[in-house]
Formats: sequence, C-alpha cells, structure tokens
Amino acid sequence: MPNLRELLRVPGGARIDLTSYDTAATPGGPRDKAAGLAATAALGPRLAALQERLYAASTGGDRRRLLLVLQGMDTSGKGGTVKHVIGLFNPSGCRIKAFKAPTREELNHPFLWRVMQALPQPGEIGIFDRSHYEDVLIARVRGLAPPKVLDRRYGQIDRFEQSLVEDGVTVVKVFLHISYDEQRRRLLERLDNPEKHWKFNPGDIEERALWPAYQEAYEIALARCSTEEAPWYLVPADRKWYRNWAISTLLLEHLEEMDPAYPPGDFDVTASRKRLLLDSIADPGGGVPEGCGRR
Amino acid sequence: MPNLRELLRVPGGARIDLTSYDTAATPGGPRDKAAGLAATAALGPRLAALQERLYAASTGGDRRRLLLVLQGMDTSGKGGTVKHVIGLFNPSGCRIKAFKAPTREELNHPFLWRVMQALPQPGEIGIFDRSHYEDVLIARVRGLAPPKVLDRRYGQIDRFEQSLVEDGVTVVKVFLHISYDEQRRRLLERLDNPEKHWKFNPGDIEERALWPAYQEAYEIALARCSTEEAPWYLVPADRKWYRNWAISTLLLEHLEEMDPAYPPGDFDVTASRKRLLLDSIADPGGGVPEGCGRR
Repeated sequence: MPNLRELLRVPGGARIDLTSYDTAATPGGPRDKAAGLAATAALGPRLAALQERLYAASTGGDRRRLLLVLQGMDTSGKGGTVKHVIGLFNPSGCRIKAFKAPTREELNHPFLWRVMQALPQPGEIGIFDRSHYEDVLIARVRGLAPPKVLDRRYGQIDRFEQSLVEDGVTVVKVFLHISYDEQRRRLLERLDNPEKHWKFNPGDIEERALWPAYQEAYEIALARCSTEEAPWYLVPADRKWYRNWAISTLLLEHLEEMDPAYPPGDFDVTASRKRLLLDSIADPGGGVPEGCGRR
Repeated sequence: MPNLRELLRVPGGARIDLTSYDTAATPGGPRDKAAGLAATAALGPRLAALQERLYAASTGGDRRRLLLVLQGMDTSGKGGTVKHVIGLFNPSGCRIKAFKAPTREELNHPFLWRVMQALPQPGEIGIFDRSHYEDVLIARVRGLAPPKVLDRRYGQIDRFEQSLVEDGVTVVKVFLHISYDEQRRRLLERLDNPEKHWKFNPGDIEERALWPAYQEAYEIALARCSTEEAPWYLVPADRKWYRNWAISTLLLEHLEEMDPAYPPGDFDVTASRKRLLLDSIADPGGGVPEGCGRR
C-alpha cells in the first residue's frame, strides 16, 4: 500500500496554488470506480477493528483519540464522507459535530470555544463537518472580523491544534477539493430532483460567486496551518468513490500508526470463571427454577 | 408484515411476570438466523431513506424526532444494537448517548436533567444506551434513594415522556430480555477471549447475584411506565439476530407511521437553474481559465 499521507499532505509554509491541483485526479487510488468501491468496502472491517481497539484502550487509561476535520466548498462531499466513510465505523464510538453559523452564545466566546465543546473523548473518533477553519474562511471572505483579528487566528489555530496533539489527539485535516464546474453539476443535480430541494439554498449561488476569494482563503489557511503536528491533506473530490477511498485510507494509516492495544484485564480470570460456572440464583424470586432452562 | 408493535408491546398497569416470557422466542420474526440476517440487512436502505426524509423535514420546520431507549441487564445487547441496528442509519443524523454512573454534577440536578441534555433535535434519531430508567432500576435494587423518592419517579418519568411526545418526540422504549443462563454464557465468552477482557468487570458478577431484584425492578418499571403515549416493548434477546431484526422492524414501523415528507423548496427552481447555467467566475483569480475544464 502506498503511503497516502505523504502523497496528499499539503506542505506548510509556502502558499500553494489550488488551481494547479487536478480535482478529478486519483493519486495513489484504485484504477477505477468499481475497484475503488470494492477497496473502500474492504477497508470497513479493518477500520472498525482498529476503532474497537482504540475504544478498548481508553478503558485501560489510554487517552488517545482521533479527530477528523472536514472542510471544502458547498457540495464538496463533507456530508457524503460522514455517510459513507464514518458509516463504516461503530456509531457508538463516533462523535460527530456539524458546525453551522455561530449562535449568539458562541459569538460571545472566543472562536475556539464551541470547538472545544465538541472534541472527541479518549477512545473516540471525532468528526467535524466544518470547523474552526470557518473562522478564517467565510470570516475572511465575508469580512466578519477585522483583518488584524483574522490574521491572529492562524497562529491561535496552530497553537490550539498543537495542544490537542500533545494531549493525545491525532488530528486529520482533510480539504475536499472540487472544481467550479463540478460544483455547478452538483447544484444542478439538486435542482433537478425535488427530493433534493431541501439541500438547496439560493444563497449557495451567492457564495459560489465568491469562488476565487474562497480559494484564496483556503490557500492561505492550508499554508499557514499545515503544521508538522497537524498537517492538512488535500483530497481531490470530484470523484466521490476516490474521495471515500482516500479518506478511509488516511484514517486507516493514522489508526495503524496509533496501533491501539486491548488493555490487559486487571482481574483474576480463573476465579471469575469459577464463580460464574458455580453461581445460581439464590432466591428464584419470580420463579426461575434451576435446571429448567429457558421458558 | 405483522404489526410487531402490537406483538411486543408491554401492557401498562398490571405487573407482568418476566419469567413467563421466553427469552429465546422469536415472535413475528423470520424463521431462522440466516433469514433474520437477510431480513435485517434488507431493512437498512428503507430505514436510511426514512431517516433522510425525517431529517429533510426538519429543515422545513417539522420538529419531529425519534428517541430509542435501550434497557436490559448486562450483556443483553444494548451495545450490539447500537452497532448493528443504528449502524444501518446515516451517522450524521444519530445522537447517541451512553449513560454511566452519574457524575457529581449530574447528582446535584434532578435525575431527568442529564437526560434532557442528550435529547435528539428535530430530524434526528436519538439513542439512549441506558437512560433515566436506571434511576428506578439500579437505584431501587441498590437503595440509592429513599423508597418515597424512588416511588415518585415513575410518575415523573411518565409526565416527562408525555411532554416529549407532545413536543414531537416518538419514544420507542425497548427492554432487551435475556435469561440468567444466557448472561452466564456471554460473560464466560468475554472471559475466554482476552480481546474481550476490557468488557468484563468482576463487579458484573456481584450485579448478577441481584438478578431477581433487578427482574422485579424491571417488572415494576414496565408496568408503571408503559403508557399509551410511550409504551415499552419487550424484545426477547437471547438470539442476537432476532433482537436486531425486531428493533429494526420496530423502528421501521414507527418511522413509517411518522411518514416524514421532503419539504417543498421555497425558491424559484427555474431562476436558480438559469443562474447556475450562466454563471462563470468573474475574476479567475488563482487562474481558473474559462472553458478549460479541469486540469
């Protein structure tokens, strides 16, 4: 298996040119859609097994957890990723948070406050559908904060994420990169299907008019916040099957590196087995007669 | 399809004798395990489709949501239900809460307080792995509150659930009924597999010694809190395939009765389509040349 992390990692520091990345590419991926769907399905049991080990480890005191941050333009597939990739995991160990426009209470706190409330706990996999990055994306494009405040946020984000990593969080940040034309196709698809009208908002077209400004905001955020501790990954996302495969594979690579272990039992197995084999209901109470088996 | 709700519903008022219910029975279910697994898998897409409609409806102002309450003795399959049944849904619309021993803060509030924090929001499916019923189950068996306080709680629960129903919550309460012998088998299985030791706690054997008291506490809770608005369902749970099929079917029946509808779009579809087809990036900015398609 190729090391997809190396392939998709965004170099920090120097600003990249997003238009130089092919949104329909399939770097490191299976040869075609059929192979991609099969490969992703095959990853499911491996991901679920690692997740169980991660959760089990937390019951033995291991504080580690994983946080997947999903960012991308409207229709880039953040929701689809949750459905198809996170759907491969046991839902009880996933903590999913979709960030919307901040509430009044959230605005009265530092911008990282609401993010702190939604962090995964030890053993969990956290998923952010949008995140604190909105505060340097839409906030920048729409001028929701003074330039000086916006500019400070990149450093605040870097320090925040470094603290998370130090506290045992593996941070996996994924930018879903789609093209302007692909977004048009997907928005038209929503318009053409009345059962998808609820997903459509005419305001999406206004946002779309700001495409270049958003791409610029992403380029800056990726450059300034792709750190050693918490790098950004750029996933070409025009092909949904590739997107799902790539994110599944990124998660697998990180979980395998974490290599969580089942904790050893801290009890006497033989004694417990003996007690179980010998026990019986002292007072049958409601009337469970011994040796009668089930009714 | 039989009406499973009628079949599994616990009559309210009169106390039932749990020992008279066969924990290995498969009322209304497929003939055997293979058929049961196939039937449950076949329910997946139908459940997911209804869930999407429920979520979509909430974006149009429909406040309705569903709350699945799972109760049962240790090893009865609450966690397995979340994994195998809730795993059929889109995880982004599920709000799962596993209730543990109350924290100090939770104890300082009324017992329903922590439950309120975990309720599903409009369009969501909430899942309680244990619930406010612990406050009349372990609390009763272990004498964690004075008898008078305990006794008041049944009425408080009934009124609380009635308010939920009035506010648009469909409450589906499931008691997973296993036998004393089946619990022994499942605990032994955990002991026999080192990868399952983390799920085992010698304290489980102490709890098990209180089996008759727990069964009695369940009998009382089922009788007093199986109301017209929020009935209890008794699911025989010795057979995991039946348990998963039965709960999936109960959820299906409730979601079908709710019959959520996609909200109509409140925008001009033709105008939006036209704008989308004609739009182009005014300022290519980073360099998206028109008509050049993807790179």
